[in-house]
Amino acid sequence: MGEPGLKLMREAADKFGLFTVSEVMDPSQVEMMGRYVDIYQVGARNMQNYHLLRALGEVRKPVLLKRGMSATMEELLLSAEYILAGGNYNVILCERGIRTFETYTRNTFDLAAIPVIQKLSHLPMWADPSHGTGRRDKVPPMARAAVAAGADGLLIEVHNDPEHALSDGAQSLEPPAFTRLMAELRIIAPAIGRRIA
Amino acid sequence: MGEPGLKLMREAADKFGLFTVSEVMDPSQVEMMGRYVDIYQVGARNMQNYHLLRALGEVRKPVLLKRGMSATMEELLLSAEYILAGGNYNVILCERGIRTFETYTRNTFDLAAIPVIQKLSHLPMWADPSHGTGRRDKVPPMARAAVAAGADGLLIEVHNDPEHALSDGAQSLEPPAFTRLMAELRIIAPAIGRRIA
Amino acid sequence: MGEPGLKLMREAADKFGLFTVSEVMDPSQVEMMGRYVDIYQVGARNMQNYHLLRALGEVRKPVLLKRGMSATMEELLLSAEYILAGGNYNVILCERGIRTFETYTRNTFDLAAIPVIQKLSHLPMWADPSHGTGRRDKVPPMARAAVAAGADGLLIEVHNDPEHALSDGAQSLEPPAFTRLMAELRIIAPAIGRRIA
Amino acid sequence: MGEPGLKLMREAADKFGLFTVSEVMDPSQVEMMGRYVDIYQVGARNMQNYHLLRALGEVRKPVLLKRGMSATMEELLLSAEYILAGGNYNVILCERGIRTFETYTRNTFDLAAIPVIQKLSHLPMWADPSHGTGRRDKVPPMARAAVAAGADGLLIEVHNDPEHALSDGAQSLEPPAFTRLMAELRIIAPAIGRRIA
Repeated sequence: MGEPGLKLMREAADKFGLFTVSEVMDPSQVEMMGRYVDIYQVGARNMQNYHLLRALGEVRKPVLLKRGMSATMEELLLSAEYILAGGNYNVILCERGIRTFETYTRNTFDLAAIPVIQKLSHLPMWADPSHGTGRRDKVPPMARAAVAAGADGLLIEVHNDPEHALSDGAQSLEPPAFTRLMAELRIIAPAIGRRIA
Repeated sequence: MGEPGLKLMREAADKFGLFTVSEVMDPSQVEMMGRYVDIYQVGARNMQNYHLLRALGEVRKPVLLKRGMSATMEELLLSAEYILAGGNYNVILCERGIRTFETYTRNTFDLAAIPVIQKLSHLPMWADPSHGTGRRDKVPPMARAAVAAGADGLLIEVHNDPEHALSDGAQSLEPPAFTRLMAELRIIAPAIGRRIA
Repeated sequence: MGEPGLKLMREAADKFGLFTVSEVMDPSQVEMMGRYVDIYQVGARNMQNYHLLRALGEVRKPVLLKRGMSATMEELLLSAEYILAGGNYNVILCERGIRTFETYTRNTFDLAAIPVIQKLSHLPMWADPSHGTGRRDKVPPMARAAVAAGADGLLIEVHNDPEHALSDGAQSLEPPAFTRLMAELRIIAPAIGRRIA
Repeated sequence: MGEPGLKLMREAADKFGLFTVSEVMDPSQVEMMGRYVDIYQVGARNMQNYHLLRALGEVRKPVLLKRGMSATMEELLLSAEYILAGGNYNVILCERGIRTFETYTRNTFDLAAIPVIQKLSHLPMWADPSHGTGRRDKVPPMARAAVAAGADGLLIEVHNDPEHALSDGAQSLEPPAFTRLMAELRIIAPAIGRRIA
């Protein structure tokens, strides 16, 4: 997203009391984006872009680091070390599906990564069922599964008109489905001693 | 398991009012096993053993068909057709993990198979978090995830002394952990309109 | 193939001085097939069908054991042990492609298995570029590669009218292409100290 | 490699009449490296680093683009388009192994990519058996296989003291083995109508 888009997102976030997250793809974008986003996102394709990871070690805003589509859980943790080594300890990890022979879903959503990473690391572990499945009707069951497995956060794509979304429309929930999902998640969270506000 | 073992299992099941399930590996075992088991299990390695599947189409007891470790969801459904074609409609499908590049877990537990199969087929879809993860401490979170994703049943290995189990001890729960897990599952089930007795 | 088909194949082989190979899928077929075939073939889907492997340990004809589509090289060797343990030492191993995320080819032809298996085992190691690629025009380059990598034998599907083949037509060579390929292989073999008759 | 190292490599190349290739990892390195290298190499981890690819579209030196370890053949071609779109038509593609469940070799060397890419594209297609196998003794058979499959070039790591190499020693050939390999390749090349000088 270019600077004008980021500015608009910032204004909307401020108006409604929201946080913003946007993908950073190159070290040259870090400084400019820092004026607008609350969280930098590193996409799966850049999980091993060490120049970018080192640049994000120099800032002090949270970084959401997504697992690469062929990265092991251990490699995700090793990539996080590049950011941590720079002194930026605000790293959030995220499972978003790995690439396997199965083609029915866009990716294979490897939920076991949640308890595994949580045992190996103190960093928060989120899950992205939108990319993890690539199919709108599979997002609610997999979002519920992620919370039941202990996920510390969810990334869910929502769009008020997904058929006309510029990207990822096929995996975006419409607002009513999102509301229903949140009600289900509020029932599940107490099973693992948590509550959703 | 040979006939003496099956006989013992049957006696124990009758005494405590339980059902029995055991793996059938060859057409020649079908008749003998039928005298002892309530459910035939077809293991992942035999999912495409068509002689065995056809033999199980001739009986009228339920067959628990596990997904092969490199089988697509679609191939699991096609294998079920070999049993259904013989007139045995009591087929239960089961996700038990697929083989991927990730080696931290024994298999990659592909929970998206649950809602996918349930949409494509009327057959009940179970999940096996014991084989799906291969690690005892990962069984409870993945069992919770499977129920939250909508699984119609779970296969969970329990052993009173897993360190000395003849097989699969590393993925077997001890009874107290199983009891705790069941309490968690009772909280989650209502989120999808179900209850666990 | 049923008994009438096997009988016809045997007669054709005898008339032209050829050997025959056909797939055995169940222990119950072993005795009957033994009257017609020179080599039993165990297909990829049955590589871990232990009842079948044990039955083939009891005969004294060669067994061509194909690597399962998600089997490691080590597992292929372990499956061979089931046959060898019965006293049948005539086992031929065969790489025929593994299942990966790549979908352009039918399978991913893992040619490194040739030198790896040859170092770990004394058994002959063949390669099947027809199944390994699933595409007719990719069979010649991959057959050449297999010989260059040191394969002890090749499985190549040839059909005089592949468009009307009952199965695997898309990966079958027509006779003139097969003749051209053989000429190329005769040039390559000496590079590794071998010759093709 | 930093500028002093590149300068040394350039001097050695000039002295012995060699070409140089080195990995570029970030757009900020493109200009500096251009003073020393004949070919820019984009590593597997950066195959989808679009900022880097676009920057390399602006220069007029050859770019060696390696296939990502979970990239399909089609995605490799799509990545090349980012460079070509900038007007730099000197793109060389390279198979270097993909990530699968097989762990005996460092990667699974997907040689079928050679004839597939050559049919879909006019770009030269190279192969890297050193990374493709990760094991020194598997490099010669896989190098031979790559030439037999039609590879337009090979990347082979050679080191005069591989046990003490700073990186990739386990997959580096010693000079005598390299000399023997070249002799074998000279026999194979004519099988596909080529010769090696």
